[in-house]
Amino acid sequence: MPSYAPSRLTVDLKAVAENYKKLKSMVTPECGVAGMVKANAYGLGMEQIAPLLDRLGCPLFFTATLDEALFLRALTHKPVAVLEGLLSGAETEYVTHNLIPVMNSPEEIGRRTYSGPSIWHIDTGMNRLGLRPEDVTRLMETGQPPFMIMSHFACADEEGHPLTAKQAAIFNEVAMKFPALKRSLCNSSGMFRNSAWHGDMVRPGMALYGLNPTPEHSNPMKQTVRLEARLLQVKTAGSRETVGYGATYTLPRDSAIGIVAIGYADGLLRSGSNSAYFYWQGHPCPVIGRISMDLIAVDLGELEMNQPLPHPGDWIEVMGPHQSPYQLALSCGTIGYEILTSLGHRAERIYLAS
Amino acid sequence: MPSYAPSRLTVDLKAVAENYKKLKSMVTPECGVAGMVKANAYGLGMEQIAPLLDRLGCPLFFTATLDEALFLRALTHKPVAVLEGLLSGAETEYVTHNLIPVMNSPEEIGRRTYSGPSIWHIDTGMNRLGLRPEDVTRLMETGQPPFMIMSHFACADEEGHPLTAKQAAIFNEVAMKFPALKRSLCNSSGMFRNSAWHGDMVRPGMALYGLNPTPEHSNPMKQTVRLEARLLQVKTAGSRETVGYGATYTLPRDSAIGIVAIGYADGLLRSGSNSAYFYWQGHPCPVIGRISMDLIAVDLGELEMNQPLPHPGDWIEVMGPHQSPYQLALSCGTIGYEILTSLGHRAERIYLAS
Repeated sequence: MPSYAPSRLTVDLKAVAENYKKLKSMVTPECGVAGMVKANAYGLGMEQIAPLLDRLGCPLFFTATLDEALFLRALTHKPVAVLEGLLSGAETEYVTHNLIPVMNSPEEIGRRTYSGPSIWHIDTGMNRLGLRPEDVTRLMETGQPPFMIMSHFACADEEGHPLTAKQAAIFNEVAMKFPALKRSLCNSSGMFRNSAWHGDMVRPGMALYGLNPTPEHSNPMKQTVRLEARLLQVKTAGSRETVGYGATYTLPRDSAIGIVAIGYADGLLRSGSNSAYFYWQGHPCPVIGRISMDLIAVDLGELEMNQPLPHPGDWIEVMGPHQSPYQLALSCGTIGYEILTSLGHRAERIYLAS
Repeated sequence: MPSYAPSRLTVDLKAVAENYKKLKSMVTPECGVAGMVKANAYGLGMEQIAPLLDRLGCPLFFTATLDEALFLRALTHKPVAVLEGLLSGAETEYVTHNLIPVMNSPEEIGRRTYSGPSIWHIDTGMNRLGLRPEDVTRLMETGQPPFMIMSHFACADEEGHPLTAKQAAIFNEVAMKFPALKRSLCNSSGMFRNSAWHGDMVRPGMALYGLNPTPEHSNPMKQTVRLEARLLQVKTAGSRETVGYGATYTLPRDSAIGIVAIGYADGLLRSGSNSAYFYWQGHPCPVIGRISMDLIAVDLGELEMNQPLPHPGDWIEVMGPHQSPYQLALSCGTIGYEILTSLGHRAERIYLAS
């Protein structure tokens, strides 16, 4: 059956593989590059990404939730760590399915209903999940030690942010006391900031999926996604007519308008109203008026002056060669991560083989 | 198997049914109340909502896309109209599955590959999909007439917006010329603004799902959703410590922080960072720091002064008796619609029987 989907999301598995290999080349052979596949592999598809990383030698996967880990278990035999921790009442699931809880609290560590392997998460300044550094020694003496300790950077994407070095120092201070334990500190940006922080395991997410780990420089990673939506209609509207809900945009001149089959129900954030750009054959088409649930209007006026207009049925580029997730995110007031995890609910998904 | 989902979305089908009955009571017995089930029934679940509306006598359903209509066809035998129009090359699908294209352009109307029933969409000022009013007479003379004409309001949610009456007048002017055709003009807000606009078919969406069609008054509709997320950890953090990515929030005092298992990958918009509130047993807990992919921090400090703190495993209310989709939307800088269509990717879905 042909696809009648109004949009299509193309995931370039070859680009994901190249990104993984690049990240691997940045660390020593002794340092593992974990597979961050939480949130459906940042929206790209855990079913496709996890086996790919497995084949490329990924030694350990991370999911956010136990649910995700149980889903992942059918896709790989490698160890899987669960960032949300040891869910109370679910201890036997971890044992049965060989899942590793990331212990975030003294309570989880002290719980007698689980005695398998664990990772301990030390909160060095993010103030999200994790143990207070000052509690670690006492917990090591009373509980069953983990095989690895980890922490997570809050500001590594900002070059030279003082909290990053501070977090690294706090983590190192704890790690020095327990030299037998493996160490994992770096997310994508952390990896690029200082190789001395790599430890035994890095956990790049955003860089794997093509986002820029060092935003002050051009992106060293390959873009992994392309999103296109169908043009449904091209129409003309007169100067001073308004466009869309709330009549928030007034046409400055007679213009051709394109109606594109994508909206916020597809995860294209409404905050891009009157701000984002789409592209047709490389030509920018500004989004005009409010983004609605299923449809978006773009102004084709500039285009019209220079060349033939697109036709209904043509694919309009939302992300691709002319627009990165980062650029779309900027015009929606957010970050590339949210763009990726939000997109493509009704899209046809196409995977380019690695 | 028990659910280990980090969040749960409860959809109250009884509330949806009551909203449908209320909307039906507002129109004459001759006026149909169509079922707007596009975008997975505004995120609530087409599989549950469509059969419910069918049982309540819904005469006609609307979807945004052909894909959605093909999915809906397995759920109801009632007529289904497709708002995106007559997709080129897919004409036989409409015929085979008894789907009604909403014709938006002269080209669609003129296409010889389809001769089944249709609805014509007249663009009376939204400047989205639809025919120019001045083209309708000519098209009626040359093409196969529809059984119904429709239009869509751009600003009916704003009381007294001049465009609404103008759109109604333009629609009425066209409709007067073709008295044999059925008429459909009103979305939810339009229904409440003027009963003279109801015509033969109304198409309420947001009101059906419990959003407020007349925002200047208290909401006449029943809230249909509750969203809760698990508390994973309660921890203390010191005055002047920062919270989350980018260290955007600084604690004004020593405080208890709760880490909640929901984030933007669950559709909880990142724009609610440092702005939204969650609730625990009715007590407001402000979101502090940036919303991250899987986790959100809330300040439990105010709570701490007055009563015992919640425990890991407790459910935190994101929407429910203490917070409507509208209220959550306000703190995320958007509208209730986007909240509904975005939420619940990893949530367990619970349907309360109608």
